[in-house]
Amino acid sequence: MPHYQARVLVHLRPSVLDPAGEATRSAANRLGVEGIENLRIGKVVEIELEASNEMDARQQVELMSDRLLANPVIEDWTLELKLS
Amino acid sequence: MPHYQARVLVHLRPSVLDPAGEATRSAANRLGVEGIENLRIGKVVEIELEASNEMDARQQVELMSDRLLANPVIEDWTLELKLS
Repeated sequence: MPHYQARVLVHLRPSVLDPAGEATRSAANRLGVEGIENLRIGKVVEIELEASNEMDARQQVELMSDRLLANPVIEDWTLELKLS
Repeated sequence: MPHYQARVLVHLRPSVLDPAGEATRSAANRLGVEGIENLRIGKVVEIELEASNEMDARQQVELMSDRLLANPVIEDWTLELKLS
């Protein structure tokens, strides 16, 4: 069966505050990094999986993303999938 | 000044255990998702910044990544940068 490499990026929704991101942005300023306009921290889930075809792989990872990887109240996610 | 969109992916080094990833993988199996061979959870930092050129933007984000975003003992990072 073909092997796929999936990357799920989980981000806080834009309306949700990101205190860790704000703290990192302040620390970057103290470090002398200038010009930062926005900084948000999210999660990335890298998955290697075997599936009969790309549609099947996508469905499996979408199911996981909806049910396990993201909290839909405060987060949304995007999926990048490729044959490996 | 031009605006850039940087994405820093911070991953645990391959030799470092990822208990959250293992727990997620087990939960995926219970959910009926089959064929997962590997699952690792990392961080993604999305940065919008202004810089005089791409080299400058890259240097600023590399400095942040080394000093603030990743713990070099257990993590490594990769940078994707594009003009926005």
